[in-house]
Amino acid sequence: MSEDLKQAALDYHANPRPGKISVEITKPTQTSRDLSLAYSPGVAEPVREIAKDPENAYRYTAKGNLVAVISDGSAILGLGNLGPLASKPVMEGKGVLFKRFAGIDVFDIEVDSESPQAFIDTVARIADTFGGINLEDIKAPECFEIERVLIEQCNIPIFHDDQHGTAIVTAAGMLNALELQGKSIEEATIVCLGAGAAAVACMKLLISCGAKQENIMMLDRKGVIHSGRDDLNQYKAMFAIDTDKRTLADACDGADVFVGLSGPNLLSPEILKTMAPNPVIFACSNPDPEIKPELALETRDDLIMATGRSDYPNQVNNVLGFPFIFRGALDVRATAINEEMKVAAVNAIKDLAKEPVPQDVVEAYGGDALSYGKDYIIPKPLDGRLLTKVSAAVAQAAVDSGVARFPYPAHYPLNSVDDIK
Amino acid sequence: MSEDLKQAALDYHANPRPGKISVEITKPTQTSRDLSLAYSPGVAEPVREIAKDPENAYRYTAKGNLVAVISDGSAILGLGNLGPLASKPVMEGKGVLFKRFAGIDVFDIEVDSESPQAFIDTVARIADTFGGINLEDIKAPECFEIERVLIEQCNIPIFHDDQHGTAIVTAAGMLNALELQGKSIEEATIVCLGAGAAAVACMKLLISCGAKQENIMMLDRKGVIHSGRDDLNQYKAMFAIDTDKRTLADACDGADVFVGLSGPNLLSPEILKTMAPNPVIFACSNPDPEIKPELALETRDDLIMATGRSDYPNQVNNVLGFPFIFRGALDVRATAINEEMKVAAVNAIKDLAKEPVPQDVVEAYGGDALSYGKDYIIPKPLDGRLLTKVSAAVAQAAVDSGVARFPYPAHYPLNSVDDIK
Repeated sequence: MSEDLKQAALDYHANPRPGKISVEITKPTQTSRDLSLAYSPGVAEPVREIAKDPENAYRYTAKGNLVAVISDGSAILGLGNLGPLASKPVMEGKGVLFKRFAGIDVFDIEVDSESPQAFIDTVARIADTFGGINLEDIKAPECFEIERVLIEQCNIPIFHDDQHGTAIVTAAGMLNALELQGKSIEEATIVCLGAGAAAVACMKLLISCGAKQENIMMLDRKGVIHSGRDDLNQYKAMFAIDTDKRTLADACDGADVFVGLSGPNLLSPEILKTMAPNPVIFACSNPDPEIKPELALETRDDLIMATGRSDYPNQVNNVLGFPFIFRGALDVRATAINEEMKVAAVNAIKDLAKEPVPQDVVEAYGGDALSYGKDYIIPKPLDGRLLTKVSAAVAQAAVDSGVARFPYPAHYPLNSVDDIK
Repeated sequence: MSEDLKQAALDYHANPRPGKISVEITKPTQTSRDLSLAYSPGVAEPVREIAKDPENAYRYTAKGNLVAVISDGSAILGLGNLGPLASKPVMEGKGVLFKRFAGIDVFDIEVDSESPQAFIDTVARIADTFGGINLEDIKAPECFEIERVLIEQCNIPIFHDDQHGTAIVTAAGMLNALELQGKSIEEATIVCLGAGAAAVACMKLLISCGAKQENIMMLDRKGVIHSGRDDLNQYKAMFAIDTDKRTLADACDGADVFVGLSGPNLLSPEILKTMAPNPVIFACSNPDPEIKPELALETRDDLIMATGRSDYPNQVNNVLGFPFIFRGALDVRATAINEEMKVAAVNAIKDLAKEPVPQDVVEAYGGDALSYGKDYIIPKPLDGRLLTKVSAAVAQAAVDSGVARFPYPAHYPLNSVDDIK
């Protein structure tokens, strides 16, 4: 990041007032009568109605449009374990994205917990407050157990975006990239460098989308995850295969797909050269990818490349997913975000990339034509159609898979991002 | 409450969208560059700054103006223990009042806790998120221990409004009423009917304001709290005195002051008649006071009467206190709301009642003249001067008593309620 950008980011957060959010009143409060409806004595009525039937909380409070973004600060962006307070700008920022893209109100909650169990207890006890919970920046492998137990204990959607949001957007781009390269997900051989939360979730979702487990080779810091290793946690162990391959070079030799969720510059041109013809390279380490796009394209010109960066084509950006996934889930009061809803999001994002791009989106990205192809395999974040397409697909999948408690069309039917106001 | 008002309250909460609050973005988010400052990669800079120095959270996040209103729903208004979810409309409403009167952003948090310790743990773990915490509608005696431990564990202001907010506004009105009746707080004999959270806090604060402990007689459901009783929790026991009096009638005979924080119609005209000349009656049970003002004034005309109701003169309303107490505390980043700050709030509210009332306030309350006297011993909630007078007094007291971490004038200097926007 340039010094200019660093200073601009600090100024942006500090001025004219600290932070990026405020809480505002949505009802009239000018007169004494207004206040007697908003608070005492009028407020006793909705209290009584909710005591009679908890579902009435969706009718009389902000719960139904309210998501908690919760972190313990143990894995903040690529910066590591800096603690809950330091994660606050990120969590507020996540709330900003939820609001900006899907009109969802977010309370960011930073949890100072001494153990995963303490974190779970804390979140479970405050869960009633919200319509859904987005877990964020929690380190692996703790994040898996935390999410699993919270899903079990809460009857609202619990979603660890670092896992599933990343996986959904990656899968959408991957399916398009494979199609453009004339390959099928069912037959593609896939190397995944990295075995953290995002990597595990990505590979699981690719399997839900048709990939064969035996075609996936995952690598952690020690190399290929294979069935001869005895140092694997249960999440890595799911991906252990019986193979003689040990290094990244071994794994990539002849592979169709490289997914990097690891660290900068770990994929060398020499290894890239050994991959199958027309490979797909998702180098998602941020801000520095596993291989620089310039270097990759210089090494061979038959690849499709995606990164996590906004200054190259094909940015794998979670914001294409989470706002709309929660929008769809909240709209039908889903009790969970299940695999069917995730796959529906993948397909909606994937399909949108094939549609002609509206002029306002083209202009927002500098005016260069955007059309489905090697340099445009996933939609752009500022594409307002994501809201209607992805949210609707997720909501419908919730209804079809039996986790919706409210019929579609939605509680907050939104036709465009302008309806958010 | 009339059926009309009940329906109006439900409509108010439900339409045009559920609830009373939303979370809004305070910074530009239209362009890709805006988003790169609000979230990745720009957000890494404030993260690093806060990791270096936690105080930077006040500079780069919403923390410094953010208060949590937290309840377990164990004592909702006068409705009892209806659980956390049913308390949500009240907690949202409290947030509305914080914003409306003092520009403070509020996250309402409803906690489903199996024990006071679980509640304490939960609140302590999420405390980093906030600049202050307002505990609300938690039943006694658990609320005392909860507040005590949280004050010990957290370095931000923790304030149980049902206790201290009520006490502050009561004390302000009481001091004026006594003055108007030609009595002094130091010599007044005081009967307190009720021994819950508010009652205990009120009597403690009256003592801080000059009342003599030996002049206070507190009664619970079983009658006078005296030193011969062995059924008292430690909070009631603080008020046990050596006396032969047992009943409310015994206690009120010749007393100067009656404070009711109990239930409807518990003070009879017969008992009222036996009080000292020029008595002060605070009948604060809501919505039905310990004695109806009409009945009290019919019984004797030398009294000053206050209630919790907005449709009679002299409403003891917490909203005269908590927004401005927190405003003052946040403005100087106080680490606590201590006794000095509470007394400063009492005096500021008390003194404001003696000032001429601006015309806009007069009109907001129907146009009848408001001037210091028997029917106007405390300011009206819509009096915009509360913001500057009370907040400034509290902030100054925080500085003077050594709990401020930031110099006055304030972090968010507000000159009128219009500056809140």
